[in-house]
Amino acid sequence: MAHDDDSIARSGTDAAAGTARSLLAETVSAIGPPDQSAISAARERQERLTKPSGSLGTLEDLSVRLAGLAGECPAPIPEPAVIAIFAADHGVHAQGVTPWPQEVTAQMVANFLAAGAVVNAFAAQVGAEVCVVDVGVAAGLPVAPGLLARKIRAGTADMTAGPAMSRDEAERAVEVGTEVAADLIAAGHRCLVTGDMGIANTTASAALISVFTGTDPAEVTGRGTGVDDETWQRKVAVVRRALELHRPDPADPIGVLSAVGGLEHAALAGFIIGAAAHRVPVILDGVIACSAALAAVALAPDAVHAMVAGHLSTEPGARAALAALGLRPLLSLEMRLGEGSGAALALPIVQAAARLLRDVATFDSAGVSGAKE
Amino acid sequence: MAHDDDSIARSGTDAAAGTARSLLAETVSAIGPPDQSAISAARERQERLTKPSGSLGTLEDLSVRLAGLAGECPAPIPEPAVIAIFAADHGVHAQGVTPWPQEVTAQMVANFLAAGAVVNAFAAQVGAEVCVVDVGVAAGLPVAPGLLARKIRAGTADMTAGPAMSRDEAERAVEVGTEVAADLIAAGHRCLVTGDMGIANTTASAALISVFTGTDPAEVTGRGTGVDDETWQRKVAVVRRALELHRPDPADPIGVLSAVGGLEHAALAGFIIGAAAHRVPVILDGVIACSAALAAVALAPDAVHAMVAGHLSTEPGARAALAALGLRPLLSLEMRLGEGSGAALALPIVQAAARLLRDVATFDSAGVSGAKE
Repeated sequence: MAHDDDSIARSGTDAAAGTARSLLAETVSAIGPPDQSAISAARERQERLTKPSGSLGTLEDLSVRLAGLAGECPAPIPEPAVIAIFAADHGVHAQGVTPWPQEVTAQMVANFLAAGAVVNAFAAQVGAEVCVVDVGVAAGLPVAPGLLARKIRAGTADMTAGPAMSRDEAERAVEVGTEVAADLIAAGHRCLVTGDMGIANTTASAALISVFTGTDPAEVTGRGTGVDDETWQRKVAVVRRALELHRPDPADPIGVLSAVGGLEHAALAGFIIGAAAHRVPVILDGVIACSAALAAVALAPDAVHAMVAGHLSTEPGARAALAALGLRPLLSLEMRLGEGSGAALALPIVQAAARLLRDVATFDSAGVSGAKE
Repeated sequence: MAHDDDSIARSGTDAAAGTARSLLAETVSAIGPPDQSAISAARERQERLTKPSGSLGTLEDLSVRLAGLAGECPAPIPEPAVIAIFAADHGVHAQGVTPWPQEVTAQMVANFLAAGAVVNAFAAQVGAEVCVVDVGVAAGLPVAPGLLARKIRAGTADMTAGPAMSRDEAERAVEVGTEVAADLIAAGHRCLVTGDMGIANTTASAALISVFTGTDPAEVTGRGTGVDDETWQRKVAVVRRALELHRPDPADPIGVLSAVGGLEHAALAGFIIGAAAHRVPVILDGVIACSAALAAVALAPDAVHAMVAGHLSTEPGARAALAALGLRPLLSLEMRLGEGSGAALALPIVQAAARLLRDVATFDSAGVSGAKE
């Protein structure tokens, strides 16, 4: 919670003063492919470490990806890390898509700030900071340490009646996320972790995933934080109705976000491309982050190289989104909480993967015999 | 590596002085069922935490198990943690079951002590100590900080020609593991993590798993640290031959260990029951630990309540053993290195699960509204 708020406030002012439109374009243009020479060096070094080739499975691939992203082998250890929880409300809540009252969004923000939520406990365990970004909570929130006030609007409009937000609002929300990423990196963080809070946000996630993956809403709409059969059917119908109303074009990610997204989804997309532009890894949490990641790759395809899938949420949309992104989740613990909780648990694994190439001895250096061919 | 060796040396001396036989019986008799009132309290508290019921999946069950083991809710956080790497050699190496020369066992012990191995990198990342226990390395090892000299014999005999070790040696190796567990707990550790090193030890693991689960050797024999088809077929045949020679009785775990086990397997079984007797969780690594865990539950069925399956090794025997134990692994990263590497990565998840019940606010305490019924 110790993040310095001043630099973010300053860049927020810059954005408001008219440099906003160019920030998105600049960020997208700064995102490039992985560094092939670092990847080659990492692969070659993996083969010389004192372990049988391939014996670390997924961790070996991850260590190579981190080197490619950083552009050096070994890559720096991705620490310190920070979990940025983007919070917002959703007009589609009025359609009865969740049993939770909307006021829970603001109440949980207070819980995060009091370090009482699950993500706080997990962050403390893995040594990550937590910051909360109000990008669109429907209630007014008191000033508090650890809370970044970046409200674009007080919740989205109901996507079944019209666009969730304007294109300008969607773009500004994306840029809030990018600015937060840049400021957290400027403050010294070397790993970003996505967090989210917003009652009804799995409905917007399902809509986004349906658009970006071309999957039927019934296949990517889940039970969120606990909906019954009747509510689930209503939720699927709501997503279907919104998509029929807007017919969003997946090649126009800002248009998709404005039609059926959430303010936290837009900000998370910006946060992800911000990480990618700085070549810093970003660990994705659950279905909210995965849906935002689809928007991020629609904006900048090479952003995928900065992404690490922290875990596989039980929400069906998460699996579809990760498949479309080509990412394999590190954890699969039947979690579906959000907040960044699953990604937080994956953080030590990401850091351990980076440590492999830096700290583990080679057969030569350790005087260990190899296997017979 | 900062573990104080003196207390272990002392109890080792006690064991040599004749209290050895009773230690196993005493340990087994000290292992009891989980505490049902702590389990009930943990389940009830999980329902009041500020998160939707069930949204943390496997973590919720784990938090409840930890409370039942500790006998209190919330359970203490399982830290600090220590990875004990039991190292030994295997006479069955002579049968050509692996491409790795036997000398690699001793070379890797040196690598652990120099903090150059994968497990050292992972332990450093997750804040665990590492200690190495020579329970049967074929080579003489120089005295070194972090190395516990508890050699029972200089490697096992070839299980295809006779028993791998005597019953007395098997029992003494079990007791070494129990003593190491007791001493590490006395030194303040509140989570034990299994580690292992021993060229050819997946062959002994396959034999143990075949006996204890009643599964055909071909189904539980894997490719270890990288064997080709021809070597794999030879390995299966070796296991089959050993089992036909000894026809071990799964109801006699000391007999099974002496016939086809390794010294590190026996010591790990003792380490596990030692943890269980002290009601301290023990995180199992891969196939070596899982096979030893089967011996542990054969000695003391309630020992299973102290076990947490750290990960699912790609070795087929691991899956069979975990199914027999009724344990669900926390990680599945296609790892097959051993050393304790997979269990080390699971450690923060175990600690996070315990933190849930201690640190997370309840709906009442945080003033968060519940879902509508």
